[in-house]
Amino acid sequence: MNRIKYSAYLDKIQKPEKAALLIKNHHVIGVSGFTKAGDSKTVLPKVAERALHEELKITVLSGASLGYNTDADLAKNGALYKRMPFQADPTLRKSINNHEVLYVDQHLGQTADMLQHIDTFKIDVAIIEALAITKEGYIIPTTSVGNSPVFAEKADKIIIEINRTFPESLIGIHDVKFLKKQPYREVISILQSDTRIGEPYIKIDPQKVAAIVFTEVPDCPAVISAPDEKTTAISNHILQFLEKEVEEGRLTESLLPLQAGIGKTANAILSGFTNSKFKDLTMYSEVLQDSTFELFDSGKLLFASASSITITEECSKRVFDNFKKYKDKLILRPQNISNSAEVISRLGVIGINTAIEFDIYGNVNSTHIGGTKMMNGIGGSGDFARNGYLSIFACPSMSKQGCISHIVPMVSHTDHTEHDVDILVTDQGLADIRGLAPVERAKLIIQNCVHPDYKEQLLEYFEEAYKLGGHTPHILEKTFSWHSHLKTYGTMRK
Amino acid sequence: MNRIKYSAYLDKIQKPEKAALLIKNHHVIGVSGFTKAGDSKTVLPKVAERALHEELKITVLSGASLGYNTDADLAKNGALYKRMPFQADPTLRKSINNHEVLYVDQHLGQTADMLQHIDTFKIDVAIIEALAITKEGYIIPTTSVGNSPVFAEKADKIIIEINRTFPESLIGIHDVKFLKKQPYREVISILQSDTRIGEPYIKIDPQKVAAIVFTEVPDCPAVISAPDEKTTAISNHILQFLEKEVEEGRLTESLLPLQAGIGKTANAILSGFTNSKFKDLTMYSEVLQDSTFELFDSGKLLFASASSITITEECSKRVFDNFKKYKDKLILRPQNISNSAEVISRLGVIGINTAIEFDIYGNVNSTHIGGTKMMNGIGGSGDFARNGYLSIFACPSMSKQGCISHIVPMVSHTDHTEHDVDILVTDQGLADIRGLAPVERAKLIIQNCVHPDYKEQLLEYFEEAYKLGGHTPHILEKTFSWHSHLKTYGTMRK
Ligand SMILES: CC(C)(COP(=O)(O)OP(=O)(O)OC[C@H]1O[C@@H](n2cnc3c(N)ncnc32)[C@H](O)[C@@H]1OP(=O)(O)O)[C@@H](O)C(=O)NCCC(=O)NCCS
Ligand SMILES: CC(C)(COP(=O)(O)OP(=O)(O)OC[C@H]1O[C@@H](n2cnc3c(N)ncnc32)[C@H](O)[C@@H]1OP(=O)(O)O)[C@@H](O)C(=O)NCCC(=O)NCCS
Repeated sequence: MNRIKYSAYLDKIQKPEKAALLIKNHHVIGVSGFTKAGDSKTVLPKVAERALHEELKITVLSGASLGYNTDADLAKNGALYKRMPFQADPTLRKSINNHEVLYVDQHLGQTADMLQHIDTFKIDVAIIEALAITKEGYIIPTTSVGNSPVFAEKADKIIIEINRTFPESLIGIHDVKFLKKQPYREVISILQSDTRIGEPYIKIDPQKVAAIVFTEVPDCPAVISAPDEKTTAISNHILQFLEKEVEEGRLTESLLPLQAGIGKTANAILSGFTNSKFKDLTMYSEVLQDSTFELFDSGKLLFASASSITITEECSKRVFDNFKKYKDKLILRPQNISNSAEVISRLGVIGINTAIEFDIYGNVNSTHIGGTKMMNGIGGSGDFARNGYLSIFACPSMSKQGCISHIVPMVSHTDHTEHDVDILVTDQGLADIRGLAPVERAKLIIQNCVHPDYKEQLLEYFEEAYKLGGHTPHILEKTFSWHSHLKTYGTMRK
Repeated sequence: MNRIKYSAYLDKIQKPEKAALLIKNHHVIGVSGFTKAGDSKTVLPKVAERALHEELKITVLSGASLGYNTDADLAKNGALYKRMPFQADPTLRKSINNHEVLYVDQHLGQTADMLQHIDTFKIDVAIIEALAITKEGYIIPTTSVGNSPVFAEKADKIIIEINRTFPESLIGIHDVKFLKKQPYREVISILQSDTRIGEPYIKIDPQKVAAIVFTEVPDCPAVISAPDEKTTAISNHILQFLEKEVEEGRLTESLLPLQAGIGKTANAILSGFTNSKFKDLTMYSEVLQDSTFELFDSGKLLFASASSITITEECSKRVFDNFKKYKDKLILRPQNISNSAEVISRLGVIGINTAIEFDIYGNVNSTHIGGTKMMNGIGGSGDFARNGYLSIFACPSMSKQGCISHIVPMVSHTDHTEHDVDILVTDQGLADIRGLAPVERAKLIIQNCVHPDYKEQLLEYFEEAYKLGGHTPHILEKTFSWHSHLKTYGTMRK
């Protein structure tokens, strides 16, 4: 099979190690890849290797997180100066928290606009994974679109990695539109998840293509723990809540387009819809996980729009070997469109994301452990929570043998403010805080979401704070005493 | 002059005290009015009066803040059970902080959608100020549109207050479109500040009109302190920054549509544009203050779109006596359109808002004094900061004779997260934190924005925290020690 339909590229074909030499010390690199899907599998790892032997510090911009051989190896070998807008890798995370790598944790929907408007990041080289090349020399992406269109547009040079492990049946699932810079920005005329507004390829300037390499390495598979007692309980609470919304006429049986975050909790929640009463569901999301394909198979889901497909090895086999079955039900878009404020607000997306902790007034921390250590990043959770119709945040009520309560007096870092959160849910239950004042929220959250082991302790804090007065009662000297206690004594229990 | 062109309303004309009787204990009232402009001037004050003698607790929803005779009197007389989505009144503020009134502090762009989707607030009566009534019985609003369209749509009964102090030349400046509920939400096809998409009146069901009253009371005038040394310095830093953006080709001389928040700082900043190099400016904002008319008079401003006109007594005379001069340069829209995520992101609005305090990592508190006491509310600042092209936050570096530093280790309440803030500015200088990691931001903010009196103290905190490691270094035990010190010793100086 011939994946390059543009003959002028044929003499650009190179070995990955040679192409990797295009990347120089201090370069800013824009690389394809979104939650591991569709990232650079040979060139960037070769760059990481080089950093073992030479002075090489680069800035890496991506769609979202990259695979193990990229984010982890780049970090381990000291090749990263700066990284943005998202990561989810244990090795890189460590380097970030040790101040070895600068990390810019950004809303995934906003990176492309920032690159169009400011030149802080002049992109030297874009590395983009491709399924194939069209006869005009344009790129057909693989399992993600991410920020590749803007990287290709802004870069001085482009390296294309043609990945032959993905079937050609993926051709056609992408919908790419390059948005003009303000004040010329056009309407993003998506009226439903399945609206197409662009082309199935990334238009690039063929003159900029400096190297083409081939790879046979599949995407780093997602590893997701199966739903357990807690995540199943969370999922059930959400389903019950949504069923009530339907019963009371606020939503229809097909709800509104769903978005689900990353991780085991979000995946378990979405899986729960398989055995629900809802039907003809749609998704307008950023990452499609295993649960999306379960929902297709169960006939519950009509259509899914996202920026990437990130699935486990097992699911991958099933999906890519039978891709015809799913092809007409999917669109992959650039992430400034999958996560666009305009489209999310118009469609009224129901955003379901995961928290590290939340507080009694409804503020959510999705990124920092103990207020200081970066976990992954905000990802697209803010794009959906801020502009969607309903913003749901979930996490376990308690973990680490009861040493951690995920509901605290005040979150140690705020990613989603009280103004942007509608529904909070744990294995214990759900709190619908829409239209409630802070003190009303506190009572409901403590009652419905907190583990019994921590209820009294939290109520005590609230009542003491309440006596001091104020719209949002707090005892400033004690707000983080739970986190301090955990650090000192290994538990939040007092 | 006959302001009622729909004769069926003539027998609905009543005295305000009679109309006020339509409002009963436990009612939810939706009232026109946005930052004091266009609120109910006779009926709601009569309701407040009644509360002195009878059991009367109501929930009041508005566009934004109301005038003195409404918000203050309702609060003083104990007539308020709940208030949303914004207020800016000293008496009401006190009641909120004493837990006498429940307050829901909400993004101004989101109330209408919430009301369309959930029935937590079933609206019993809408009270809407009108300039006139069309021959179909529709309402032509006065100096604000706010949430009046959704209140009129959702209410069981409507009371119209015809205010004859506003000249009829205001007819035509409104542009009202009622947005359909998701999944039927249409494109909001505004491509420039001056695009019209609706009608110059609020379409209502005439059957619902229960009373019509007349009033001759003007809007409660804005009281704004003149620019002083500090606010002028802030304004100059912003102008210099924007000039550099133009020089370096990132913006043109007409910039992008401007939004400016409320208060003396925001007003002073906007005034600063009068003597700037920019030209053909436009505004896509929510409130037009005195500075907007200064800019029109100086020929700098081509067009302004907002949801209300809130000006001082002096300015009011000048503007309303010569309204023809401004008429073609203004549009007033419903606040879910003036503050729409879709339009703000498409136009690339430059949002300039004021902070109570911000921290070394770029998080902003716009609402809570000392983390607990409500000042005004988030207003529309989040609608613009989150979705615009550039999000600027300003405040003095220091105040109360140097006892308060407005830059602190950690904000005591977060309204705008690090992810949503681009530019921070005080009288000392400006920090452009776009694309910077937290530790980079901290250095720049301390260097550029902090008052010399507090620089060392803040640097000390940062350096001690830095040693503990973490992406966002903090000493959890000391984050709010500055606020505690202020409470105990009357100063943040240690
Ligand atoms: C919040 C988030 C980390 C939760 O992920 P998850 O897989 O559902 O949840 P887990 O319970 O397995 O938590 C992940 C880890 O964080 C740790 N953690 C979670 N909450 C914690 C807390 N309050 N204190 C300390 N550690 C905590 C867990 O112990 C676990 O660590 P481990 O892997 O060492 O055991 C994840 O959803 C996320 O990164 N969200 C932000 C980004 C986002 O929402 N993106 C949307 C789409 S891109
Ligand atoms: C933040 C905000 C209160 C500043 O208003 P301003 O008029 O520019 O600023 P001022 O410096 O006069 O501050 C107002 C008051 O807050 C007090 N204040 C401000 N910062 C404070 C701090 N860090 N600690 C204690 N008090 C503080 C001031 O002392 C002043 O109180 P006073 O009136 O009793 O003297 C105002 O902009 C606001 O409410 N913003 C949020 C809403 C918004 O942005 N809306 C956008 C459009 S609706």
